[in-house]
Amino acid sequence: MKGKFITLEGGEGSGKSTAIACLEQWMKAQGIPYLLTREPGGTPLAEEIRQVVLSKRDETVNSITELLLVFAARAQHVAQKIAPALESGVWVISDRFIDSSYVYQGVARGLDIEDIDSLVRLAVGASLPDKTILLDVPVSVGMARVSARTGNDRLDGESTQFHEMVRAGFLDLAKRDSHRISIVDASVPQENVFEQIVTILEQVKQAK
Amino acid sequence: MKGKFITLEGGEGSGKSTAIACLEQWMKAQGIPYLLTREPGGTPLAEEIRQVVLSKRDETVNSITELLLVFAARAQHVAQKIAPALESGVWVISDRFIDSSYVYQGVARGLDIEDIDSLVRLAVGASLPDKTILLDVPVSVGMARVSARTGNDRLDGESTQFHEMVRAGFLDLAKRDSHRISIVDASVPQENVFEQIVTILEQVKQAK
Repeated sequence: MKGKFITLEGGEGSGKSTAIACLEQWMKAQGIPYLLTREPGGTPLAEEIRQVVLSKRDETVNSITELLLVFAARAQHVAQKIAPALESGVWVISDRFIDSSYVYQGVARGLDIEDIDSLVRLAVGASLPDKTILLDVPVSVGMARVSARTGNDRLDGESTQFHEMVRAGFLDLAKRDSHRISIVDASVPQENVFEQIVTILEQVKQAK
Repeated sequence: MKGKFITLEGGEGSGKSTAIACLEQWMKAQGIPYLLTREPGGTPLAEEIRQVVLSKRDETVNSITELLLVFAARAQHVAQKIAPALESGVWVISDRFIDSSYVYQGVARGLDIEDIDSLVRLAVGASLPDKTILLDVPVSVGMARVSARTGNDRLDGESTQFHEMVRAGFLDLAKRDSHRISIVDASVPQENVFEQIVTILEQVKQAK
């Protein structure tokens, strides 16, 4: 019996960390073996590629180069860690996965969605998420949370516009793939967010 | 007026280094500005990716991961170095390019040619070679040259079989794209190889 693959997505301040705490609590209570991982990264080589992507350099990084590096790390993550875990019956929770590429590289950098689709087929193959939990908050709420956390309240127009684009990108994906992606209203109190997540997890558990 | 893009391909011991010397000699005699580069690599970031691909590690490197890393380096090489040079009227000579991926990753690792085609469209775009010079030698000749150079004459059955597969792969590409790829018989004396290369270069120069 294969494990289920659950991914978490959302913009800044959408509460992914607390949502992961909720997922872990539920997994433990249910006695389900699970693996928690994150992207980009997840294996030593994938983390090395992540460093190549994130390190500051004088050379301009071409957006296609960045896209291919992200998917190289992902191919490694899937082949070495995610697919074997699922095969052995372990559930996998990944903090970010393919939808972040569609939104951050596709929508925000203006890359072709069809090119990203091809790379998903190549790098991810059949190890697609059974369920994606999209934590959605209005940009003003998410930004206020990040400000409270970091003490940085500089909310310039450009960054608000960028975050609006990211939010709209995620909501658009959820509309196009409503069977896989469940939207959680993450602007409400935490207990209420947890209730929404548990309802989704119960459905995933019952689904064949 | 755009520069011409010439790539050199061939297996072990096919004489790429001496062929490059011939190309440079001809470019200088003609007064054509040119840039000599190589793959994988060609820019600092691309060389960094090359190191990630080539460095020894305990983790198994998935063949798709390797393919995507090679094309990430190539996208950077094309965007930062090859395309700008061609645009400015400089000719570009690359020691290996896309055909090495078709042969080494496609034929030798068994990856899908269509997947490589998609990556070429994505990473290379319109910067395809105007002419590819394929240096062809029988495997026994190439291996004997490498042995003479390195003092290593261990020619086991498996490696001969691998080199035969590489040679057949290159010849098959040349058959499928005979307009772009010109086969040079590199088993004959050097002056004769140079004559064949110069004939090809004259044709490239005259082509609109």
